Amino acid sequence: MAGKESSSSSIPNTPLLKDELDIVIPTIRNLDFLEMWRPFFQPYHLIIVQDGDPSKTIKVPEGFDYELYNRNDINRILGPKSSCISFKDSACRCFGYMVSKKKYIYTIDDDCFVAKDPSGKEINALEQHIKNLLTPSTPYFFNTLYDPYREGADFVRGYPFSLREGAQTAVSHGLWLNIPDYDAPTQLVKPRERNTRYVDAILTIPKGTLFPMCGMNLAFDRELIGPAMYFGLMGDGQPIGRYDDMWAGWCTKVICDHLGLGVKTGLPYIWHSKASNPFVNLKKEYNGIFWQEELIPFFQSVVLSKDCSTVQKCYVELSKQVREKLGKIDPYFNKLADAMVTWIEAWDELNPSAKG
Amino acid sequence: MAGKESSSSSIPNTPLLKDELDIVIPTIRNLDFLEMWRPFFQPYHLIIVQDGDPSKTIKVPEGFDYELYNRNDINRILGPKSSCISFKDSACRCFGYMVSKKKYIYTIDDDCFVAKDPSGKEINALEQHIKNLLTPSTPYFFNTLYDPYREGADFVRGYPFSLREGAQTAVSHGLWLNIPDYDAPTQLVKPRERNTRYVDAILTIPKGTLFPMCGMNLAFDRELIGPAMYFGLMGDGQPIGRYDDMWAGWCTKVICDHLGLGVKTGLPYIWHSKASNPFVNLKKEYNGIFWQEELIPFFQSVVLSKDCSTVQKCYVELSKQVREKLGKIDPYFNKLADAMVTWIEAWDELNPSAKG
Repeated sequence: MAGKESSSSSIPNTPLLKDELDIVIPTIRNLDFLEMWRPFFQPYHLIIVQDGDPSKTIKVPEGFDYELYNRNDINRILGPKSSCISFKDSACRCFGYMVSKKKYIYTIDDDCFVAKDPSGKEINALEQHIKNLLTPSTPYFFNTLYDPYREGADFVRGYPFSLREGAQTAVSHGLWLNIPDYDAPTQLVKPRERNTRYVDAILTIPKGTLFPMCGMNLAFDRELIGPAMYFGLMGDGQPIGRYDDMWAGWCTKVICDHLGLGVKTGLPYIWHSKASNPFVNLKKEYNGIFWQEELIPFFQSVVLSKDCSTVQKCYVELSKQVREKLGKIDPYFNKLADAMVTWIEAWDELNPSAKG
Repeated sequence: MAGKESSSSSIPNTPLLKDELDIVIPTIRNLDFLEMWRPFFQPYHLIIVQDGDPSKTIKVPEGFDYELYNRNDINRILGPKSSCISFKDSACRCFGYMVSKKKYIYTIDDDCFVAKDPSGKEINALEQHIKNLLTPSTPYFFNTLYDPYREGADFVRGYPFSLREGAQTAVSHGLWLNIPDYDAPTQLVKPRERNTRYVDAILTIPKGTLFPMCGMNLAFDRELIGPAMYFGLMGDGQPIGRYDDMWAGWCTKVICDHLGLGVKTGLPYIWHSKASNPFVNLKKEYNGIFWQEELIPFFQSVVLSKDCSTVQKCYVELSKQVREKLGKIDPYFNKLADAMVTWIEAWDELNPSAKG
């Protein structure tokens, strides 16, 4: 079998993909949280996307290699196309995906700390994401012992041999200990619920199945799927928030399925330190909670034409279907469809060699 | 949320579903393995299906409530229809499903022992299966924190509220520590591989996704899906073995998807004590390894008509498609299609009140 991993959660001597991966962090505050991540992140380049007031200075702990963009930078670099980047919402992080020149992206929220595995060892989340991305996925048939490419696992009896090469992995979705990623109604109903269950598994989300992609602890192959990782129009001036990563996840999954790429979820865990305010969240979410009941059937039935041979072509095609089928739910979706096209134009402008 | 479980792996004071569940065990030897299961199985009724020489006496440890059927019994009860029950293969276990009068079935192999969870506690596999069956499944959308009906878990942000009632669970597929369920080629290549990874998760296999169902540690709702749990023609006089449970799994999954029923996999683990002989297995499997490359695309594309409103109707419709589309691979599939029809006739004869 291809690409077996070695033991996880240790600090590698030579960091994997050191010059091929950027860490993207959206923030409104000083990045003290990086101290805890120093042993794991310091070898990598950081792209910090500063949200909110651009006159504020964000402090980054010493010794990190980073570039930082605030709203003025985004406006300057994208010009009128900067309208597709959200303001006052962590959705602005996708600007970092666009300006990166690397093959891989890891994105993490600034309230996420290093988690420990059940043996008490600190989890090197980034290393696990990289292993997930560098081994294939299994979107066409479910393996009951989970990721067959992990050490100590394989394909079980009855798994067709022709499918054992798997598909290229485009996305690695990591999970969260402590504060689970709940919506406002669930937060309100279960204010004390904490996730304490460490599930030692990585698995492929099967082809044709949608999932709720959280942007808190997420890695992806920018060359394979980057242009689909648009976090939409959220926050300031928009009728919706907290659906940025969900939107990206639905679009990404549909396009991965179309292009034969894999999406993994499971390990690694990060420690999510604090719950956001459920009342504020409810205000941001309520349109999304309502609209998603129509969005999910839409994404479940999306068919992309055979001409859609690149992520960019898929995404533009998807924007047309969004306008056509979701525009009637709310005018917001027409604006979003426009922004999807603008996003691809901006992506291609900044990434001319990878033009789709 | 519906149906939260309490802590798993304890011996319940009042065994769950005591009078509504049969344990089906296919065997060719004395059932000493039951000693280890006594605290968990003794309250339940056992159906033992004796494979091979019917003149041999199988010893059952004292204190268990059981009925035992050997080949002579099967021939007497089913008459000419007994041809659908395999001989000299554990596929004969499905006769036990047919003669049961209970709503639920748990089936286990006689080389499976009680496993321990990471804390060292003995796992009450049956109790966990029952919890899996009594809580809903989530086949229409993937929940990244796994089974949302378990204690300490829920649906995550972005999970549509209209889907949170879930679907009725028809099947609970448990896993194996120690000897993994590998095919002969993998056994040959990795003779020393042992499964030591305890994955603390239960999840729903999404709608439209097939999986390799192993019959070693399996529970199901007989009223919901029983007639689909036919283990095919294997062993004596047949060109194939070790695909009995796989066949049942593919048929069952396709029918569950059609009828809107859920299939779960994951916990509970049993301890699989010994690997079967890979050379013998290769002889049994080689046709299956070859044929499954055509069987999987067949099952992935099966469509059942709207008239198929019961499991029996689905199964008979499936048998027609097997004859039509798989008969050209090998005459064996015509024989199997006949046996599928015979199985349903025999099922309805023994279960007249549930006739489909």
